[in-house]
Amino acid sequence: MLFTIKHKDAHSNARTASLELLHGTVLTPCFMPVGTNATVKAVKNDDLEELGTNLILSNTYHLYLRPGIEVIEACGGLHSFMSWKRNILTDSGGFQVFSLSPFRRIEEKGIYFKSHLDGSSHRLRPEDVVDIQRILGSDILMPLDVCTPPEISREEAKQALVFTTRWAERSMTRWKSEFESSSSWLFGIIQGNFFKDLRKRSAEEITSLGFPGYAIGGLSVGEEFDTFRDYLELTAQLIPDPYPRYLMGVGTPEYILEAVEQGIDLFDCVLPTRTGRNAQAFTYNGPLSLKKESNKMDTEPIDPACSCKTCAEYSRAYLRHLFKTKEILAAVLTTYHNLYFINQLVLSIREAIRSNRFKEFKKNFLDAYKGTENDSLL
Amino acid sequence: MLFTIKHKDAHSNARTASLELLHGTVLTPCFMPVGTNATVKAVKNDDLEELGTNLILSNTYHLYLRPGIEVIEACGGLHSFMSWKRNILTDSGGFQVFSLSPFRRIEEKGIYFKSHLDGSSHRLRPEDVVDIQRILGSDILMPLDVCTPPEISREEAKQALVFTTRWAERSMTRWKSEFESSSSWLFGIIQGNFFKDLRKRSAEEITSLGFPGYAIGGLSVGEEFDTFRDYLELTAQLIPDPYPRYLMGVGTPEYILEAVEQGIDLFDCVLPTRTGRNAQAFTYNGPLSLKKESNKMDTEPIDPACSCKTCAEYSRAYLRHLFKTKEILAAVLTTYHNLYFINQLVLSIREAIRSNRFKEFKKNFLDAYKGTENDSLL
Repeated sequence: MLFTIKHKDAHSNARTASLELLHGTVLTPCFMPVGTNATVKAVKNDDLEELGTNLILSNTYHLYLRPGIEVIEACGGLHSFMSWKRNILTDSGGFQVFSLSPFRRIEEKGIYFKSHLDGSSHRLRPEDVVDIQRILGSDILMPLDVCTPPEISREEAKQALVFTTRWAERSMTRWKSEFESSSSWLFGIIQGNFFKDLRKRSAEEITSLGFPGYAIGGLSVGEEFDTFRDYLELTAQLIPDPYPRYLMGVGTPEYILEAVEQGIDLFDCVLPTRTGRNAQAFTYNGPLSLKKESNKMDTEPIDPACSCKTCAEYSRAYLRHLFKTKEILAAVLTTYHNLYFINQLVLSIREAIRSNRFKEFKKNFLDAYKGTENDSLL
Repeated sequence: MLFTIKHKDAHSNARTASLELLHGTVLTPCFMPVGTNATVKAVKNDDLEELGTNLILSNTYHLYLRPGIEVIEACGGLHSFMSWKRNILTDSGGFQVFSLSPFRRIEEKGIYFKSHLDGSSHRLRPEDVVDIQRILGSDILMPLDVCTPPEISREEAKQALVFTTRWAERSMTRWKSEFESSSSWLFGIIQGNFFKDLRKRSAEEITSLGFPGYAIGGLSVGEEFDTFRDYLELTAQLIPDPYPRYLMGVGTPEYILEAVEQGIDLFDCVLPTRTGRNAQAFTYNGPLSLKKESNKMDTEPIDPACSCKTCAEYSRAYLRHLFKTKEILAAVLTTYHNLYFINQLVLSIREAIRSNRFKEFKKNFLDAYKGTENDSLL
């Protein structure tokens, strides 16, 4: 994997870079749309390609349970199964086991859990998770880690960190022995909950293992924005400059801008797609709730300043009608707009970094985005 | 409206023709996809255009109730509202009042009914229905008629016929006095239930009113196929040759082929789109149920003989997975395939008519389509 930093912003830690992967070059900062079940919900692949998407995220936990890895293997891997020709990053499933499974037990050996779909029992060791993602054919793999919610004790956070490091070592060993030659790449994940010394310790332990890229887990999990920013700043600086930095689960404009400022290169979130299905659309003046009564006869597009296909063709009145009648096209058109909006934001961010005016861009964007009375907090 | 018969099949009543409408030329025989709520469910306009769709059907009853005609008027009419640049035929709403409304009363004056959405009370006179479709800006309008289910008494069927004729006269008067210059066209609808003398009487009365085209209502409403064929043959022959003939609510390959053989030019049905959303796909060897277990690892497309985008890119295994996970893409991809399949069928029909081998084509198609053990009756 070749990660080449192209330009560093003169007044912040923001940077542009290129990441060469097996299925094409990814320019960073980069937002990854989430395709949990081997589909970015409500978006066709050709629309994703048209949006310039070169890297999507898919979920190992979900695919492992349904359709099952044997199905995807029989279909020639995840790219072939979902007919996606560009890059895929798969998460390890750790976060989903903790957030979705009705039962789980963590042991040194691995995670024991019950499926949220049918209650069936499963065990996943770090080695299994590497093997599964190898069968999926992911371009970037993530190792099994122990995710923890906010407001746990220091002792619990420490125990999670210890497992996360040991599992990272075992994942690395597995990946090196079996798969390193495959042109896929395994990133490390830094945990440590909301304890600064544990964050530091996790970063030191994980980066000492020599991964080609590093992710920050356990942030943007419900904490206050100031807390998020503090821990992001602390953790991002602990990842050496030459490596790609991936902040997991971040997707609002405000969080993306903060992440980029702290030197983050990659981020993913269900937010643009999930809110799109729920009639929430991004605009440069803040989020717009499409279902509201005042849109009933509004012939304006979602955002007159947006040049996406949805805004070129359809009015707020029409989109409101589609949501009110529960038409599939409502989700299709609004999700497309939201992904286009985030992609435009990322393109503008890259351009701002290249001209050393990222902080000015961030301020101007957020002044407009947060300056008006918004329909909700996207 | 210019309706030009291009070729008559030498061995049946099948024919090809062109129908010049305000939003482009429609070649017949033509299947109209149904866009009830101002959207063909799960299909984007650009995909419809790519399919060669030049005429869709939308439902006056649904649009009248939601979003309301005033909304569509404010948005510049139905074409502008839904951003559809080609032709639209709107039904009169009569069928929907009879099939959906929890309460209705028919009087000489018009129909009184309650909305199936909120129970609100409405009255629609034949003149109102013409006016509404004029505001929608439909290319082809349908007059309010009285639809009746099978197995009613002769007296009931006769009463429905009488109203249908009187309302057709009033609709025609309204259309002529106000709107004839608008380049939109009002068709007549022949009713008469399953009584041959009433069918004959209705056809005589309606065709005497001088509409530019004629529809056959009240068939394909649950009757046996042989009954359908008998009444179709009888009624179709009562429509003079130079006029476009529209058979309402027909959409399976078997019914379409029968209709074409009897000289029908236009037909519409929710079937290709509705079944697509319910995991039923057309194949040349009969319908395929995508959810079934045997598709779990099937890497074949829906139909290897189909050249649509869905079949070019996606396997049965993937589509089954999308339906099992209730992903929006399942409906999007399968609906597209079903509309493509029906469109290919119609293209083949036209070609067969031009070369005077329609009956041979029909036999060969149905032998393959019905010859194997199918998953269901599409």
